[in-house]
Amino acid sequence: MKKLNADDYIDILNDVLKDICPTDSEKEELKIFSDKIISKIKDISKYPVLDIIQVGSTARDANLKNDHDIDIFLRFEKETDRDMLKELGLKLGKDVINYFNGKSWIEYAEHPYVSGEIGKFNLDIVPCYDIENCEKIISAVDRTPLHNEFLLNAYENNDLSNDIRLLKKFLKGLGIYGSDLKTAGFSGYLCELLILKYGGFLNLLSAVQTWKPKHSIVLNEIYEMYDLKKDHDFLKFNDSLVVYDPVDLNRNVAAALNEENLCKFIFYSKMFLKKPSKEFFYGFYKKTTDLLNQRKRGYLITLEISRPENVVEDVIYPQMEKIQKSINKLVKEHDFEYLRYQNFADDDTCYLSWEFLIHELPDVKLRIGPPVYSEQGVLNFITHNEHYFVKECNVCAYKTRKYKNIQILFEDIVNGKLKNIITYPKYVCPENAKIRLGTFIERK
Amino acid sequence: MKKLNADDYIDILNDVLKDICPTDSEKEELKIFSDKIISKIKDISKYPVLDIIQVGSTARDANLKNDHDIDIFLRFEKETDRDMLKELGLKLGKDVINYFNGKSWIEYAEHPYVSGEIGKFNLDIVPCYDIENCEKIISAVDRTPLHNEFLLNAYENNDLSNDIRLLKKFLKGLGIYGSDLKTAGFSGYLCELLILKYGGFLNLLSAVQTWKPKHSIVLNEIYEMYDLKKDHDFLKFNDSLVVYDPVDLNRNVAAALNEENLCKFIFYSKMFLKKPSKEFFYGFYKKTTDLLNQRKRGYLITLEISRPENVVEDVIYPQMEKIQKSINKLVKEHDFEYLRYQNFADDDTCYLSWEFLIHELPDVKLRIGPPVYSEQGVLNFITHNEHYFVKECNVCAYKTRKYKNIQILFEDIVNGKLKNIITYPKYVCPENAKIRLGTFIERK
Repeated sequence: MKKLNADDYIDILNDVLKDICPTDSEKEELKIFSDKIISKIKDISKYPVLDIIQVGSTARDANLKNDHDIDIFLRFEKETDRDMLKELGLKLGKDVINYFNGKSWIEYAEHPYVSGEIGKFNLDIVPCYDIENCEKIISAVDRTPLHNEFLLNAYENNDLSNDIRLLKKFLKGLGIYGSDLKTAGFSGYLCELLILKYGGFLNLLSAVQTWKPKHSIVLNEIYEMYDLKKDHDFLKFNDSLVVYDPVDLNRNVAAALNEENLCKFIFYSKMFLKKPSKEFFYGFYKKTTDLLNQRKRGYLITLEISRPENVVEDVIYPQMEKIQKSINKLVKEHDFEYLRYQNFADDDTCYLSWEFLIHELPDVKLRIGPPVYSEQGVLNFITHNEHYFVKECNVCAYKTRKYKNIQILFEDIVNGKLKNIITYPKYVCPENAKIRLGTFIERK
Repeated sequence: MKKLNADDYIDILNDVLKDICPTDSEKEELKIFSDKIISKIKDISKYPVLDIIQVGSTARDANLKNDHDIDIFLRFEKETDRDMLKELGLKLGKDVINYFNGKSWIEYAEHPYVSGEIGKFNLDIVPCYDIENCEKIISAVDRTPLHNEFLLNAYENNDLSNDIRLLKKFLKGLGIYGSDLKTAGFSGYLCELLILKYGGFLNLLSAVQTWKPKHSIVLNEIYEMYDLKKDHDFLKFNDSLVVYDPVDLNRNVAAALNEENLCKFIFYSKMFLKKPSKEFFYGFYKKTTDLLNQRKRGYLITLEISRPENVVEDVIYPQMEKIQKSINKLVKEHDFEYLRYQNFADDDTCYLSWEFLIHELPDVKLRIGPPVYSEQGVLNFITHNEHYFVKECNVCAYKTRKYKNIQILFEDIVNGKLKNIITYPKYVCPENAKIRLGTFIERK
């Protein structure tokens, strides 16, 4: 890789920044507003609430333009009873949003919290426990204030906000920003750690050229914070990318990132460095998909499954993936072959799509048995197969094929005949699904 | 394997022997006739002919009923000029057959020899050089008299003629008797060595149950003849079965046997021992094939190629196999898949047949490129492929398929467009061949 010349990129990156960096007045407005909220919560809260912290990208000047999400965490004393934390958290949240004449509702995660709108601002007011770095978490969100503290300290004398914004926008363009289970990409926190590690957007893209799956990253700050030797033996993870969490060394910040998305990042970083363009930052994934679909197609088939109400994306997407993989296994066992598969869910429906290369086969298949010199194997085989013969070194038999085409196999999936072979997940159950031939639904 | 009880088999084997063992009068008639021939040749031959030997199964009482082939070898002094050997050999052969009012003609092998008919007897009169065991052969047939001597000695006090006959008939039934390149099976000489080694037909079949491909056999006689230690380091062969030739330790008697035919022998030996039946000895291969063909078929295609005149089976069959393997490679490269293929030649035509499982594909294929982290590989790939994308860890592209169905590919074979990709053998050239769809020609 030749040494980067930042001049080749500066105009393009500045152009992008004009679109994505909040204006000074926007930043100021947000600061004033969130200070007001926090000050109000401080007024009306008391022990066991220890402190009120604004977290998230808006708290660290790392948000994109028009991102008006304000995340406020209420840190409770560790010994607080979980029900009390929940109750007090919800009450404080509701009260403060009411006070500012906003609209509030309850969101359900591991524990419920208040979400609301006040004017153009979206608020999340989330209770959590006050823990130390590397201490065992009590509720799922306890690390968030620690992440916030770490980043504020780390970036104190080193403003890389715009590099963080560029990275987020780049990943959005590629469709791999977000650590939710649908996207399986890069979280905002991961972006901030990566920019910190490599000192900027272009430096990161350049460094990525040497990455392979299983790449592992330890921030210098970690050695300092915990006074570790350079050869410290960190916990091993089996993930595509490993980035040790500075506030919990037993956690991989990149755990949600799947291998294909890591590889997309490696590949398109190379493409951008080779031929910089604004294109990568704006709906690049969608445009690429559209282009790729301007071609002759294989045999398309989509299963449409009713989506149960109130089942969130983080549950639906893994279950769609699971049932599709389980169907894929069956498809291969019956000698069919797909070019690609994909899943997508809108509010009402889960769409499982396949494009087949081989969707039809003659009514005969070869069953390959054991080698002729396998005493017991051969005797078993000839007991179970009427007309056998020797092919190369094995005893074999021709069998009638169970599924001559993929449609019949899919019909047996939706009519439940394969229930004992495929495990139907709880919320994405293909029984009574609709089979749409000639249709492939792209993920949106 | 349980110990054999010969009683379970004796009736069946005796039944078969009634069909295949020449009668005493038949044996006597043959003996008297061949003695007359040899005596006559001795009368009219002189130096450099050293001796006249009857060889082949009829010389050793190992022939099947109605086998009236008499093979007579004229052994010449080693220094004899090859042209003189040829000339004298042909003259002696013609003269003796004329003397008995037979009909004679010339057969062409490495050197020409006289073949003829006298009454119901078929004669081959073949000149060769007089060499010793393990001495380098001068002409291709010089070992034959040595084989004959070895077997006569070895069987002197141990008459296993009927066991040899049973083995030959069994192998004929399975379609694997003969070391010609079409059959690629067991030669008569190999049969006699195997019966010698294991002391009988049933013992051999039982011993075979422990064989695997690459099995290697050294006769006890070899250690005695050459005074070898038990751990003697014999020449290694890469053949399916290795049987060291007692008259030339650097030769594998089973070299012509292919692995599938060895495996057929292993398998059907097991079947016979498990459930003895006369069936195995009589057209078993043909009956099995007919049964196997009573099933649904894949997509059948046969290439009919004119067979050039005067090209023998031992040349045609390897060339048919070669061109078919070369076409098979192409077929796989284009993602088609066959269930089986076969070749057969009659006097006028070579038939190359295939039964396809996948004969039609959509107009798109996936080209899988290098891993995204392969610097040079990726740059090469994107230079040669317009619309690329990342799939798992590789850069990939969709390509238009060159052959959407197998028929178009076969058309390009017969119109010569693939001449640079497939090497067309000299005598089996598919250019201008006829393509027969829906046809599969079984070997006869």
